[in-house]
Amino acid sequence: MGQWIKDFDEGDMTQKDLLGGKGANLAEMTRLGLPVPPGFTITTEACRAYLATGSAPEGLLDEVDEHVARLEQAMGRRLGDDEDPLLLSVRSGAKFSMPGMMDTVLDIGLNDRSVEGLARSSGNERFAYDSYRRLLQMFGSTVLGIEDEAFAGELDKVKADRGVTADVDLDADAMRGLATTYKSVIREHTGQDFPLEPRAQLLAAVNAVFESWNTPRATFYRRQERIPEDLGTAVNVQVMVFGNRGEGSGSGVCFTRDPGSGHQGVYGDYLENAQGEDVVAGIRNTMPLADLEGIDKPSYDELLAVMARLEAHYRDLCDIEFTIEATKLWILQTRVGKRTPEAAFRIAKAMVDEGVIDADDAVRRVTGAQLARLLFPRFDQSADRVLLSTGIGASPGAASGRIALDSTTATEWAGRGERVILVRKETNPDDLPGMVAARGILTSRGGKTSHAAVVARGMGRTCVCGAEELEVDVEKRVVHVRGGRTLAEGDQISIDGTSGEVFLGDVPVTESLIVRHLEGTADEEDSLVDAVAFVLDRADAVRRLGVRANADTPDDAARARRFGAHGIGLCRTEHMFLGPRRELVERLILAEDDAGREAALADLLPLQRADFTEILEQMDGLPVTIRLIDPPLHEFLPDQTALAVRVALEDDHGQRDRQHHRLLEAVGRLHEQNPMLGLRGVRLGIAVPGLFTMQARAVLEAAADRIEAGGDPRPEIMIPLVATAEELTLVRPEIEAVVADVQAERGLTIPVRIGTMIEVPRAALTADRIAEDADFFSFGTNDLTQMTWGFSRDDVEAAFFPTYLDHGVFAVSPFESIDVAGVGSLVETAVRLGRETRPELHLGVCGEHGGDPESIHFFERAGLDYVSCSPFRVPIARLEAARAVLTG
Amino acid sequence: MGQWIKDFDEGDMTQKDLLGGKGANLAEMTRLGLPVPPGFTITTEACRAYLATGSAPEGLLDEVDEHVARLEQAMGRRLGDDEDPLLLSVRSGAKFSMPGMMDTVLDIGLNDRSVEGLARSSGNERFAYDSYRRLLQMFGSTVLGIEDEAFAGELDKVKADRGVTADVDLDADAMRGLATTYKSVIREHTGQDFPLEPRAQLLAAVNAVFESWNTPRATFYRRQERIPEDLGTAVNVQVMVFGNRGEGSGSGVCFTRDPGSGHQGVYGDYLENAQGEDVVAGIRNTMPLADLEGIDKPSYDELLAVMARLEAHYRDLCDIEFTIEATKLWILQTRVGKRTPEAAFRIAKAMVDEGVIDADDAVRRVTGAQLARLLFPRFDQSADRVLLSTGIGASPGAASGRIALDSTTATEWAGRGERVILVRKETNPDDLPGMVAARGILTSRGGKTSHAAVVARGMGRTCVCGAEELEVDVEKRVVHVRGGRTLAEGDQISIDGTSGEVFLGDVPVTESLIVRHLEGTADEEDSLVDAVAFVLDRADAVRRLGVRANADTPDDAARARRFGAHGIGLCRTEHMFLGPRRELVERLILAEDDAGREAALADLLPLQRADFTEILEQMDGLPVTIRLIDPPLHEFLPDQTALAVRVALEDDHGQRDRQHHRLLEAVGRLHEQNPMLGLRGVRLGIAVPGLFTMQARAVLEAAADRIEAGGDPRPEIMIPLVATAEELTLVRPEIEAVVADVQAERGLTIPVRIGTMIEVPRAALTADRIAEDADFFSFGTNDLTQMTWGFSRDDVEAAFFPTYLDHGVFAVSPFESIDVAGVGSLVETAVRLGRETRPELHLGVCGEHGGDPESIHFFERAGLDYVSCSPFRVPIARLEAARAVLTG
Repeated sequence: MGQWIKDFDEGDMTQKDLLGGKGANLAEMTRLGLPVPPGFTITTEACRAYLATGSAPEGLLDEVDEHVARLEQAMGRRLGDDEDPLLLSVRSGAKFSMPGMMDTVLDIGLNDRSVEGLARSSGNERFAYDSYRRLLQMFGSTVLGIEDEAFAGELDKVKADRGVTADVDLDADAMRGLATTYKSVIREHTGQDFPLEPRAQLLAAVNAVFESWNTPRATFYRRQERIPEDLGTAVNVQVMVFGNRGEGSGSGVCFTRDPGSGHQGVYGDYLENAQGEDVVAGIRNTMPLADLEGIDKPSYDELLAVMARLEAHYRDLCDIEFTIEATKLWILQTRVGKRTPEAAFRIAKAMVDEGVIDADDAVRRVTGAQLARLLFPRFDQSADRVLLSTGIGASPGAASGRIALDSTTATEWAGRGERVILVRKETNPDDLPGMVAARGILTSRGGKTSHAAVVARGMGRTCVCGAEELEVDVEKRVVHVRGGRTLAEGDQISIDGTSGEVFLGDVPVTESLIVRHLEGTADEEDSLVDAVAFVLDRADAVRRLGVRANADTPDDAARARRFGAHGIGLCRTEHMFLGPRRELVERLILAEDDAGREAALADLLPLQRADFTEILEQMDGLPVTIRLIDPPLHEFLPDQTALAVRVALEDDHGQRDRQHHRLLEAVGRLHEQNPMLGLRGVRLGIAVPGLFTMQARAVLEAAADRIEAGGDPRPEIMIPLVATAEELTLVRPEIEAVVADVQAERGLTIPVRIGTMIEVPRAALTADRIAEDADFFSFGTNDLTQMTWGFSRDDVEAAFFPTYLDHGVFAVSPFESIDVAGVGSLVETAVRLGRETRPELHLGVCGEHGGDPESIHFFERAGLDYVSCSPFRVPIARLEAARAVLTG
Repeated sequence: MGQWIKDFDEGDMTQKDLLGGKGANLAEMTRLGLPVPPGFTITTEACRAYLATGSAPEGLLDEVDEHVARLEQAMGRRLGDDEDPLLLSVRSGAKFSMPGMMDTVLDIGLNDRSVEGLARSSGNERFAYDSYRRLLQMFGSTVLGIEDEAFAGELDKVKADRGVTADVDLDADAMRGLATTYKSVIREHTGQDFPLEPRAQLLAAVNAVFESWNTPRATFYRRQERIPEDLGTAVNVQVMVFGNRGEGSGSGVCFTRDPGSGHQGVYGDYLENAQGEDVVAGIRNTMPLADLEGIDKPSYDELLAVMARLEAHYRDLCDIEFTIEATKLWILQTRVGKRTPEAAFRIAKAMVDEGVIDADDAVRRVTGAQLARLLFPRFDQSADRVLLSTGIGASPGAASGRIALDSTTATEWAGRGERVILVRKETNPDDLPGMVAARGILTSRGGKTSHAAVVARGMGRTCVCGAEELEVDVEKRVVHVRGGRTLAEGDQISIDGTSGEVFLGDVPVTESLIVRHLEGTADEEDSLVDAVAFVLDRADAVRRLGVRANADTPDDAARARRFGAHGIGLCRTEHMFLGPRRELVERLILAEDDAGREAALADLLPLQRADFTEILEQMDGLPVTIRLIDPPLHEFLPDQTALAVRVALEDDHGQRDRQHHRLLEAVGRLHEQNPMLGLRGVRLGIAVPGLFTMQARAVLEAAADRIEAGGDPRPEIMIPLVATAEELTLVRPEIEAVVADVQAERGLTIPVRIGTMIEVPRAALTADRIAEDADFFSFGTNDLTQMTWGFSRDDVEAAFFPTYLDHGVFAVSPFESIDVAGVGSLVETAVRLGRETRPELHLGVCGEHGGDPESIHFFERAGLDYVSCSPFRVPIARLEAARAVLTG
């Protein structure tokens, strides 16, 4: 057969690369013998050839003619024939569905003569002119690039003239008039007449599909979704069937299960005397699919059979578009249907129960992102809710609070304990304090990559952005909802960061059912709970990566364990120096001699020991990786600027305070230009004698206490910020000495491992040497990302990530999903070098990437032993670790 | 022959790995037929075997016996014989000379009986007992580890008892008594008798040499000098000859040229009736070597012949130790002699003139470090100078000023324009402001790796440390010179950071002769100037690496060119935003709209253009790499804390200043936690529209002006802080548009290249992608070091580098000499990946490492095209670039 074109009966569903998704599914259904209008697919290869040269590749036009001739022969009609015209549709269809591309042109083949032929042959003049004006409108807007409003405006005018509201109420005359008007619109906008020649219409539509691959919107979408630029799209050319042929005709969309809940049943919508796009456009109210049974039972029964056949064949929920033309059922499209997270889990489990798929398939069928959606709090669905407007769900969750129109107000009100929603036209770095203080953020402008969206996701704040119906008037301190009510600052609203909905008043929030079950605080039965449990059980059996949690407190440790964590991968100890213990750190810093320093450390020891004892108890029998203190000591002191102002004013008022002066002097002395690159981590351990020793002793004594209490502690001591093997060579013996001392004092053997973070680029580059003194590596991918890119998250994320995302510098923040090319290559280097030195080296990751699905897949490929993430992300990590194995 | 031992007549000078330096040279002289006392060398292999097991390797003892027997046969005497004993010396000799190792034991074979035999056979009882007490002392201190003072004290007592001051004035009786006393000292300190058995003495001495390889001092020295740990040392066993055999005997040291100046002539010292160590110890005043002619002309003539022979043979200055025993000349050691920088250059040039070596040898014979010494200012040698004390020359240069005893005083006095020397017991980070303010730093404690030394070298401040005779009394504000005068704070002193000398008063400083010649401000002739010029000319012919300078001003550019730079590798533009132009930057930052920002940029444009025009003029015909603005904009604003205090006080006093408030608000908004990792470099160029465009236009217009003026400008525009290819993909077209615009406006073709810094680890890791849009890479090794190690130089260098150097975490600061294992591996990766994409990619380095000798050798190996360094280091870079080729 031809080089550039495949007939629908030549392909199958595996050929998405060549035929695109739509074309492959049309071929598959043709192969199954389903009633698909005949047609052919111009391949993605033809598209690539076109885009490379800017014109149709040699032989393509001949092949198009040949295939059209075949269709004409099969149908016994000629394209655009004056008497009984064959009409065609042209639809794009890339491998991945992609917004921004030209979509559809219907009714190709109509012109001033053939429309009359169609009227005669169908005996339905209104249908013929309705079809003609549809062609003119679609061709005009999608092929010729005339904005849609130019046509819609004329339609509205005619409806107004005739005093009708629905398209179906326009008669043949009105449609004929519209066709004439649309031709004028085309002439006015392009200076050219609409091409009456059917072959010219067809070829223009095909070229338009090819060229739409490169629209800015499509290009941007591909960059966002990391779809390669060079795939190209296929073009599907298909014989028209008509749901708009009067009574006994219609179009509909159906799903083989409920895509909202996942429950079984017949779900769909049907619209009489309409084409498919009318259903989507919502020009009239559709009827439930079940009602079709009463109208056209034979077609309904046939459709149910097709649905059953397709679901069994695709072994998944199918989304089907169909048309009934004069009681004859046609299937126009099918694909595996999109679904809500609830539906995804329920369907996966149900299909396992039905024997359609196996348990591994169930794990493949759901994603960590879907599970995450099930773990966020939501608004109580049963509560009364008044929808104010809908924007873009930019950072998931549900939040209620009083409207605050600027950062200062938000901070102030939050300061006195109120829940606040920061509402802004858009945010900028100045709004940061308010964003931190608020429960949620709502903007009237900007999309998922706007400043508000990026920052909110980074902070885990609920955020709705781009709610364009809102007008924020900061001067008058009000928010107008366009065409609706006006709210004053201080009024209560609620935002849903998943759906993008904005509600009036304080909508009650319900905790996630799944979380309550994991927590053991819910006992209601629900098929969703069973489905999630089933998938996670299977995931645990499949995955190779261990999953631990980052947890600094006994409560977090307990929760992490309930969520399925097998140990703690990162227990930060600096949190244990806050609160009332700051005073001890101040003493440590201000100590004027060794004795003073040692006394302060001695007072810290029992407090730290108690912290560790409880955590080890919660994680009994499982490893607990304790990171020795990491931040610079001056971070425990007061803010320099605030203290300087206070001291200056005290002095000015003759109220000189000696202790404040001493503190200010220390703050000045310890001040660092770049604390992230300062005296912290292992450097602090080397520079401040006794600090690491005290912490190690607290860990070892806590472990000894646990052993004596009959427990099974498994502490791992982790040295932060190591950049060179010699640092570890210095510090390790110091800790080993403590181990030996405590073991001797207590007469016990304490199982403890000593390892290091790999979070400085140089540590990764010299991991062979570092592995000589490390029992384990834990990749601190947050710091590693900061140093590898040379930017500090705090400083740059809000300041220029939105700009960078807009410009496509990166598709996703490297703090959200690991930068495989840069940071990832360092991880791979460290894994290779570390294992060269020490084949049994245990490798994990404790940065936030440990809970990110794409990053987890990378860590699986990189051969790590475990990931560690926040307790709430543990179930997600369990699932994605398994999916990484199954989807390879 | 044997496995572990080589006789002197079996080896040669090439065998330093096996025989050590001393052994190889003894073998070489034996091979030349010079009068070397016979002996043998126990190889480094034997040492390594000993150290691996802790005992002599199998066969070694047999071989020792065999070789001793051969010596006995050759000399016709037996080791330690009762009548006419053969005596031996044992000396260590590693491949590289190394302090801290056991050095020498002489007169092995003497005991209570053989000493009598020696007295009889030599007819000189005093000589015999002098030799015996020497053996006891050396064996006791170096083999048995008894401190030297134990013996020296007894010697002093005997001299005092006898009322004499010189050893030679002690008679045979006194020497015999001393031998007895020394035996008691040994018994007291070790609980054991001195081993009378000659073979036991010999073997103990050999083992002691082996074991001294691992003394802490030797280990530390090797780490400092990067000498491998596993080389081991050889042991030289040699028949004793005696310069202490009375009249007609003596010992001396001589050089084949003056090691101080490099001039030709006979240089050396001779001491009658003494052993070599007496010459070194300075127990009596030596006589000039020339005086030997009058005492023993045959030996003198023979020695001159040996000197000529050795210099011709080694083709270099030789340092020779000799002994005359009863008018018979013996050569005990030779080696290529150490020399001053002046001597190194003069000798290299002279030997080329003499046809002894070729010009490439001359380049190999001198080092960049030596040349650097010739480029620093020095004290006027002709001026009267009163030496107060001598410490360690820790950071070269010469500085005079008034003594300031704390940082505050130093800062205050320097603030009113005075020259200050900060004098402290030792420094810590609190002293930093004073160190910055002072001309020089002097401490009484600490070595070359002390805080003062490290920080001073980092800042280029002259520093003398560890001047232990000084007692700094901060309470009384005075400095006592132990056993000397007392100086008050405010008194004038002068310090020489090269020699470590401290002088009283204001010693005049003279500029370097070489610098004055390079600058063209000196016209006196000097063979040193000729020698340096000769070496640099040859270096320029030999080297592959280009040498450019880092220069931001026309003056620096002009100087760099005079010093031999072929272009500018780094012209920083941020310096052009300082001074009165700060006001424009403030306007830019505070601009409330696009118009305000554009107006501020428009006002900056002509100023920048003028900056570039002058620099391009100075470097006409040579490339000038201009880095677009790099630091965060807020660095041009006032200090936050100071401004906050000012505003608080103004407000408190009812003097509220609106502009100050606005500025404080902006400072707060732009404040960054870690500015080094903040909104700077290319991020700024993307975030602040028009900024890079303005700078590019200034460069292009300046180049156009130069072309119109008949010049040949070669600007290169460099984008800082690129971390990912997409940044360059965004910015490059913006700059190319400016190039096209200016070319069109001026009707000229402007040769310009556009490239990027590689200073962020990720840029190196993804250099293949980055090279797609870069004509050149310039490695910014300062930032690359900071990010690869995760430390900021400002914050950590003073705070913990001294500790790290002390602990051997690194042997040298990675900011001084490039860290080959970490940062170097990123450079190599970037070179490889960059050239894969773009084989013609031009590669340079513009970090401070560009002027560091060891780093230059690395850059040669890495295949860069050029190095760029500060103007003063350009001659050093020219030399070392050539040496990197020759010594590769």
